[in-house]
Amino acid sequence: MNAFGKNFRITVFGESHGPAIGVVLDGVPAGMPLSEADFEADLARRRSGAKGTTPRRESDTPRIVSGAYRGHTTGAPLAILFRNEDARSDDYAATTDHPRPSHADLTAAQKFHGHNDPRGGGHFSGRLTLTLVAAGVVAKKILAARDNAIRRDVHSDPAPSGNNPASGNPAPPIRISSEIVEIGGSRDKTLFEATIAGAAKEGDSVGGVIECRAAGVPTGLGEPFFDSVESVLSHLMFSIPGVKGVEFGSGFAGAALKGSQNNDAIIDALGTTATNNAGGIVGGITGGGDIVVRIAVKPTASIAKPQATYNFASGEIEPLTIRGRHDTCIALRAAVVAEAALAIVLADLIRH
Amino acid sequence: MNAFGKNFRITVFGESHGPAIGVVLDGVPAGMPLSEADFEADLARRRSGAKGTTPRRESDTPRIVSGAYRGHTTGAPLAILFRNEDARSDDYAATTDHPRPSHADLTAAQKFHGHNDPRGGGHFSGRLTLTLVAAGVVAKKILAARDNAIRRDVHSDPAPSGNNPASGNPAPPIRISSEIVEIGGSRDKTLFEATIAGAAKEGDSVGGVIECRAAGVPTGLGEPFFDSVESVLSHLMFSIPGVKGVEFGSGFAGAALKGSQNNDAIIDALGTTATNNAGGIVGGITGGGDIVVRIAVKPTASIAKPQATYNFASGEIEPLTIRGRHDTCIALRAAVVAEAALAIVLADLIRH
Amino acid sequence: MNAFGKNFRITVFGESHGPAIGVVLDGVPAGMPLSEADFEADLARRRSGAKGTTPRRESDTPRIVSGAYRGHTTGAPLAILFRNEDARSDDYAATTDHPRPSHADLTAAQKFHGHNDPRGGGHFSGRLTLTLVAAGVVAKKILAARDNAIRRDVHSDPAPSGNNPASGNPAPPIRISSEIVEIGGSRDKTLFEATIAGAAKEGDSVGGVIECRAAGVPTGLGEPFFDSVESVLSHLMFSIPGVKGVEFGSGFAGAALKGSQNNDAIIDALGTTATNNAGGIVGGITGGGDIVVRIAVKPTASIAKPQATYNFASGEIEPLTIRGRHDTCIALRAAVVAEAALAIVLADLIRH
Amino acid sequence: MNAFGKNFRITVFGESHGPAIGVVLDGVPAGMPLSEADFEADLARRRSGAKGTTPRRESDTPRIVSGAYRGHTTGAPLAILFRNEDARSDDYAATTDHPRPSHADLTAAQKFHGHNDPRGGGHFSGRLTLTLVAAGVVAKKILAARDNAIRRDVHSDPAPSGNNPASGNPAPPIRISSEIVEIGGSRDKTLFEATIAGAAKEGDSVGGVIECRAAGVPTGLGEPFFDSVESVLSHLMFSIPGVKGVEFGSGFAGAALKGSQNNDAIIDALGTTATNNAGGIVGGITGGGDIVVRIAVKPTASIAKPQATYNFASGEIEPLTIRGRHDTCIALRAAVVAEAALAIVLADLIRH
Repeated sequence: MNAFGKNFRITVFGESHGPAIGVVLDGVPAGMPLSEADFEADLARRRSGAKGTTPRRESDTPRIVSGAYRGHTTGAPLAILFRNEDARSDDYAATTDHPRPSHADLTAAQKFHGHNDPRGGGHFSGRLTLTLVAAGVVAKKILAARDNAIRRDVHSDPAPSGNNPASGNPAPPIRISSEIVEIGGSRDKTLFEATIAGAAKEGDSVGGVIECRAAGVPTGLGEPFFDSVESVLSHLMFSIPGVKGVEFGSGFAGAALKGSQNNDAIIDALGTTATNNAGGIVGGITGGGDIVVRIAVKPTASIAKPQATYNFASGEIEPLTIRGRHDTCIALRAAVVAEAALAIVLADLIRH
Repeated sequence: MNAFGKNFRITVFGESHGPAIGVVLDGVPAGMPLSEADFEADLARRRSGAKGTTPRRESDTPRIVSGAYRGHTTGAPLAILFRNEDARSDDYAATTDHPRPSHADLTAAQKFHGHNDPRGGGHFSGRLTLTLVAAGVVAKKILAARDNAIRRDVHSDPAPSGNNPASGNPAPPIRISSEIVEIGGSRDKTLFEATIAGAAKEGDSVGGVIECRAAGVPTGLGEPFFDSVESVLSHLMFSIPGVKGVEFGSGFAGAALKGSQNNDAIIDALGTTATNNAGGIVGGITGGGDIVVRIAVKPTASIAKPQATYNFASGEIEPLTIRGRHDTCIALRAAVVAEAALAIVLADLIRH
Repeated sequence: MNAFGKNFRITVFGESHGPAIGVVLDGVPAGMPLSEADFEADLARRRSGAKGTTPRRESDTPRIVSGAYRGHTTGAPLAILFRNEDARSDDYAATTDHPRPSHADLTAAQKFHGHNDPRGGGHFSGRLTLTLVAAGVVAKKILAARDNAIRRDVHSDPAPSGNNPASGNPAPPIRISSEIVEIGGSRDKTLFEATIAGAAKEGDSVGGVIECRAAGVPTGLGEPFFDSVESVLSHLMFSIPGVKGVEFGSGFAGAALKGSQNNDAIIDALGTTATNNAGGIVGGITGGGDIVVRIAVKPTASIAKPQATYNFASGEIEPLTIRGRHDTCIALRAAVVAEAALAIVLADLIRH
Repeated sequence: MNAFGKNFRITVFGESHGPAIGVVLDGVPAGMPLSEADFEADLARRRSGAKGTTPRRESDTPRIVSGAYRGHTTGAPLAILFRNEDARSDDYAATTDHPRPSHADLTAAQKFHGHNDPRGGGHFSGRLTLTLVAAGVVAKKILAARDNAIRRDVHSDPAPSGNNPASGNPAPPIRISSEIVEIGGSRDKTLFEATIAGAAKEGDSVGGVIECRAAGVPTGLGEPFFDSVESVLSHLMFSIPGVKGVEFGSGFAGAALKGSQNNDAIIDALGTTATNNAGGIVGGITGGGDIVVRIAVKPTASIAKPQATYNFASGEIEPLTIRGRHDTCIALRAAVVAEAALAIVLADLIRH
């Protein structure tokens, strides 16, 4: 439901136009330095204002309600609240009668028998991803704080055939990054801005593909049979509104290759591979290579361009023109959200 | 770990060359007719012997150890065992020293510090998918048995704007199907057989893409924020060995479209849409359209063709020729497994 | 960790002297009327001020932050916050060095390596039970709203031997109540007030036993093998600070009886029993009789009377006089908390 | 449902008179020595044959079906099967029509609408506790194997006020034991045998109280708010058929004391306490003292003595004489089961 994770668990709540949204983080280690300022960098990356994103402005200031004391985490659940400040509910008055195509307006109403909060997508709003970004900030701190301890544990027993790949070498830190690799069907980055501007001018929207990467990941993460790294990571990635595809390493393109092309030859006793078509995960378990995951983000469903769609009040198919403020390309803001998801999953898996 | 599901929960165990593999199914409704013969049709679809699949032959006879009495389920956990009969462990003696590229041999050894059962992939073997197929048979029965009741519940409250889409119309049954839509990079089915034969001749392997579909699915399945239908379904799909990509509806191709192209216009009070780029799922919730999911299956990692890869015993990169019996294209057998996964997830979601 | 429940799930957070405490409720059905005033009656029963309870006064006003819209629940998670208003942190300055015996001061510091928030017990404070009472209010509404539907489902199939106990009779509502049955070792209620007053005068405290009862519970709740009603209910009861014993029906006294004395003879086709030594639960499953559960609440650990106990700063055993405001008998306030726990568990079990 | 635990998870299945019962253990560390002979000592303690226990004889030979290879655990799930050999189903033919008072016959039939396997209690049979004992054997091995590592982790940060209780002292091993402390209402052990013999002669049964103890438990186990050690342990204890009460430390008797009597004064920097009324658990967290838990086991419900109880076939209250082979006092055999439960919970908590 609204909780994810086993040992590092996040619970989210809130609606786009309610008083506040928030997240509760359980399983945060005690004694990590944490202040509200730590959230600013990632929140700024998600914040509206850039070209192609909605003009709605939120201060997005986190308020730590519990779980921190004198600048450190306490081991108790960390609750973080964000007030909703700039919500204009009038923009959405008609969505109940004339639901937006490919938006949760209708399915939410079907699921909750018309009792859902329809304003701005309510609980289904992309605004909720703010809580994921906040959780990601804490997850990244966990990964940084525990890194050396973790690798020591994972490599503490001899590797197969008596080799111990980690001996003597301090582990490199886990580094998580993201990149927008495709917008509107093109992988040429010089075209991205013009593609978005063109769609915005038409009152339309565009989709994109984001690639996330984690380097320095210890071997042995992931649990057979059902908690493969791919399973757990895709679970969270598909919770991000608008994500309709997830692939690892060579992914769908790899399915077009032969085994001799797609296999990653092992080249040393550390298990390093010559290529990384596996995206760092073999048999569901990390093998030490970079985790590489790509997500397909659909074009924003809310577009200004009129759409002929059913009106439940009139019983007719009628043009719908959506007037609210919306991103032309939500993939732009989803990159830091996807990074957060990757960090959250690693923080959960690494603490077994 | 080795359990999946909340209200319909499956737990698997076993190794490729151990005495037996099995599955425990919890949350099976009492009173459903069930016999060992019910499993035959789907098991036959997965069974080895077809062109492009391994020549290893297993009778794959299920034995119901608990949870059924006098031909009906009892409500207690259903435990189903399969003996391993035709395992030739000698074929795999060398995999510990000279692990197969892109196979779990090495990552399993890293994770379990060399204590894993290496024979035939052990617990990571594709043989474990036999248990998923068995679970899928029971899941399909649950979907069939509960169908009418379920739709009545879901539609019991008025839909938005006072329309009640379900009134008076008995729900159609949920129908799950699968199709191999791509082999070796081609979507032309007339080429599939030749592509596989060509790879087999070279001692190589090919990948493929499987499309699964569920028709007649009630609206309102899926749980915000983290148990979207895409999240739960991809979680299980990525547990199937060899799956490296999952997409819904227009998926990655949809990320290349504009919103006006990818949006699915609503055309009637039932929420029917003119197109189905959403793959039946909007906001993570089913909307009544067909669920459409595609999975990318990588080419079989175990190939006869020699591969230059690290030998932990010698400390050198050496050619590895894999002699065991392997599928040229595991996608052929994975189709019924993917169907099972779809049925298992629906049986779990539908029983909330 | 800080979440409980499967289909009706509660997540709590907050510290006694932090800015706020709160609870997130997931799995709340959409469309239930709910306002902040609905919480007042049960919160008043828990509130401080009565004889034998702490003189600390909190307005305890709930603020619904999400999950309700226009006076109804929406199906999204319900988040409820309570501000902490009257915390006097100075009272607790010394507890880190000179921890209170039988209080979480020391074990919390050991668990969290000294990083826990020590003020007023922090996250271990009895103040957190406020969130349980709030969750209980919602749980009681769920039980009231769903009652008829539930009994219809449970009894929809024929009972053994063709009898259908429920046919034609509308189910009575589920009624949850609690009673303090023992204070300071006596079951004579006329002595309770004097016992508490006597202990208070000495700067001491007293324990008590609370009996909770649920009438009108449908048959068939509880899940073998590990989620017996006793298992799930004791799990939550033992989360209430100070509870050290839980028994059902004849409980510990029943262990002193013979089978012929303790067995509950069945007297009609409804499964009604002549006695209720089982406390309404047989084989872990409800049988239609009243659920009867008793909890032992220890005497308040924080007492004014000096106690000779170790001081970590001085390294000596020294007298500790606790000056904060504390209940003489926490059992008085725990009754409504235990009721809430019973309602929460039933709301979780009943929705399978 | 039929699974328990988070990091060390057990799943049970089987019926008393079906072909086999079994347990799947997930989260077992790789590389622990394990053979079928390791189970014999604890299984023998549970086995029938002693005075006061049923004359039914089972060889109770465990068969490890998966998860072990060449005498060591592999990290994959451990599946253990026990065949049912000496079941006489005829003894139970009438229980459906004339259900045994205070036995799961009727509630199981109500829950599963008459589809449950009624033979010998089916899935509700005490025979299932065999699987708990087997899981307990593995849990005890985990506790033994990990003990030093665990205490090092728990104490790795400085304790409050700069003391580090564990420095330099190797941790003592965790020792789990059990004792029957009451039979038929008496705590005088010299009377136990005669009490049981007397009840047996009358065709009646007696209850008892078992005390379990774990010594050498590290501090800091247990998770606020809902996974207190008492919560998790009582959850599993109440899964043992016939348990109707659970208390920790002074328990119900402690509720009759004053705070000054029940509080455990701290006497040194290790947190050692002068008394142990807390049963080793304060604020839900272990403090280093012995865990002390007592469980009330009801008198065996199945008695030979005739009982007047409702017959669903005749519609009359009629005498029921139970002819099967039953324990006079199930507490005798439950002691090793309760020990197993304590070990299972510690193995689960300790691996966080």
